[in-house]
Amino acid sequence: MASYLITGSSRGLGLELVKQLVTFKQNTIGAIFASARASSPSSELAQVIQASNGRVQYVQLDVSDQSSVEAAAATVTQKLSSTKSGLDVLVNNAGIQIPEGRISSAKASDLEFTLSTNVTGVHRVTAAFLPLLSRGQVKKIVNVSSTLGSIELSVRSPATFHPSYKISKAALNMLTVQYAAELAPQGFTVFAVSPGWLQTDLGGSYADLKPSDGARATLDIIFKSTPKKDNGSYRDIYIKGNSTYTGENPPW
Amino acid sequence: MASYLITGSSRGLGLELVKQLVTFKQNTIGAIFASARASSPSSELAQVIQASNGRVQYVQLDVSDQSSVEAAAATVTQKLSSTKSGLDVLVNNAGIQIPEGRISSAKASDLEFTLSTNVTGVHRVTAAFLPLLSRGQVKKIVNVSSTLGSIELSVRSPATFHPSYKISKAALNMLTVQYAAELAPQGFTVFAVSPGWLQTDLGGSYADLKPSDGARATLDIIFKSTPKKDNGSYRDIYIKGNSTYTGENPPW
Repeated sequence: MASYLITGSSRGLGLELVKQLVTFKQNTIGAIFASARASSPSSELAQVIQASNGRVQYVQLDVSDQSSVEAAAATVTQKLSSTKSGLDVLVNNAGIQIPEGRISSAKASDLEFTLSTNVTGVHRVTAAFLPLLSRGQVKKIVNVSSTLGSIELSVRSPATFHPSYKISKAALNMLTVQYAAELAPQGFTVFAVSPGWLQTDLGGSYADLKPSDGARATLDIIFKSTPKKDNGSYRDIYIKGNSTYTGENPPW
Repeated sequence: MASYLITGSSRGLGLELVKQLVTFKQNTIGAIFASARASSPSSELAQVIQASNGRVQYVQLDVSDQSSVEAAAATVTQKLSSTKSGLDVLVNNAGIQIPEGRISSAKASDLEFTLSTNVTGVHRVTAAFLPLLSRGQVKKIVNVSSTLGSIELSVRSPATFHPSYKISKAALNMLTVQYAAELAPQGFTVFAVSPGWLQTDLGGSYADLKPSDGARATLDIIFKSTPKKDNGSYRDIYIKGNSTYTGENPPW
């Protein structure tokens, strides 16, 4: 019975991950903490929570605000205290993509805010929840990255869109590897995963896949991940019969 | 006759690059702009300027301050206006490394400040000087990175020191690739270079190489770089007979 915290759960991939986790039996998936920036859940998330018989709980957590992150960690610690267990799986899904053109015209403030949210935000959350994760049985930290964060793929197929997002995801990949190296002796599995190009507010309507397909494929990776195979790795989803999503690890 | 701007010239590698550039004949290396954060040059840089017969000029430039960067670009534009030429080579050397231990205990504010200086700072400077670089003959942008920014090398040899610095250099590498992609049609050569582990304030006294050796090897790469061979690349220095510095490009 594994407990989960999914950040950025108000919509998109985060919401889908929560929706799908709650469909598993309670002896497989235990408490599900769905966090987002707002003081109360989005209407979509509120519906999921209401139908969950108390399995999904909302936690206010703004990744860019240290005190909000610490308060969230205290809340989850308190909520789990009756189970005498830690948090098992942290999915750092919260992230932003600011619409922008080529790098030379990207606003420095947009790059800075993207790095602050997608990189420092993940660090803040991970560091704050680490004591609780260390007391968990599963010890998985999953950082939602993107194949757009692959420097090698960017060299192979140069394109000039979303530069700040790409830079933030390359940085997130290195952050992931740093945590993986530090936590390997404790048996953690820390990895980055690209959930596919999804039809979400972030991905836009022209994207390849429905959020539910990306969420299912991402959960499949999370469930099957092991310290030996996946700690410090960069995973991409597998969609049967799809030539883009072959499940092959992207190059850094 | 190529003009240069070297950021972070008050000490370390930046100072050495300026020192060595000025030893070349004036028909090879023209105006040399040495910038740093302080309102006046360090005593070491002041000596180099004084002995340079007007070839080295100090420019105040704080990479973390947009108005300082714009003022510096206006100053250099004005100083070059008599030559009817642009700036030829920009070396984004300014950078910081905050002493820190493992990633889980790194302060979020230290990660944020490191990203702001080493990544957003380079973006700010590059964007501000781009109009002047576009009017140059040589069109080279050199971002001083590090093999510590290689995610692949970090996976192969996990070590838990300098996490914020590593994260910032991986992000810088992706920034470099974004500029390279955008500026390729204009004939630019934009690349990242690791100058070696140098005995500077940043590298510490146990480092492999003297700053002068790193600067010489870095200049060799800059001089020989071409758009076709080097645009969007990640270079490492070559030191004859040294098994660490073989000149092979690091993996991303």
